[in-house]
Amino acid sequence: SLDAIVDEKIKDALQGLECNPHPPTRISCTSVTNSGKLSSCPSGTFVTGCACGYGCGSWDIRRETTCHCQCSVVDWTTARCCQLV
Amino acid sequence: SLDAIVDEKIKDALQGLECNPHPPTRISCTSVTNSGKLSSCPSGTFVTGCACGYGCGSWDIRRETTCHCQCSVVDWTTARCCQLV
Amino acid sequence: SLDAIVDEKIKDALQGLECNPHPPTRISCTSVTNSGKLSSCPSGTFVTGCACGYGCGSWDIRRETTCHCQCSVVDWTTARCCQLV
Repeated sequence: SLDAIVDEKIKDALQGLECNPHPPTRISCTSVTNSGKLSSCPSGTFVTGCACGYGCGSWDIRRETTCHCQCSVVDWTTARCCQLV
Repeated sequence: SLDAIVDEKIKDALQGLECNPHPPTRISCTSVTNSGKLSSCPSGTFVTGCACGYGCGSWDIRRETTCHCQCSVVDWTTARCCQLV
Repeated sequence: SLDAIVDEKIKDALQGLECNPHPPTRISCTSVTNSGKLSSCPSGTFVTGCACGYGCGSWDIRRETTCHCQCSVVDWTTARCCQLV
């Protein structure tokens, strides 16, 4: 029928779009704190920065997931972990 | 008419998509600096990291919006605040 | 023909959508480290935080792309740079 043909045409056109019905709308972040000099973000999140105990501001990020505080004395390490939601 | 029926079919199909015409395309960040040990990000943004006066690198994030510098002497606090735009 | 009219109607409706077939799905971050007190993020990325040598946690961000470590003695500066992908 004409009706079915129109339905089919619309369906085909929309499939070609590969339209994502739910794009991410915001950033969500969480902090992960561990004792010692290392703290890791959970899978699916990215490290945006790190904080260290004893006032230390020297850190690097290992394997894109783990904060490493570099000062000789550091009692805790926090990773700031963000993702799209 | 047939014309109106086709229009209606198309409209219905598109509504079902919940298609977002303007997904976010980039991250935008800003810094908010205050005197003292606290600095907050504006609503709708997320804290990705903090900086502190007197060289202090020890901070935590309170209620997901506020940087808190932990060293005993800190004269300013900066929150780094990001959002999708 | 009726066929062509239906095709045109569908095409017009989809153009109005400005549907983005590939919205960003995640955040990707990288670190850029330089000797001295300045380190810049590449174009298209945003600074989410900075780290400094000699334990320094005092930094600011210049022109939205460059980390500037403020302590009097700093031998390296790292910018944490993120983007949507």
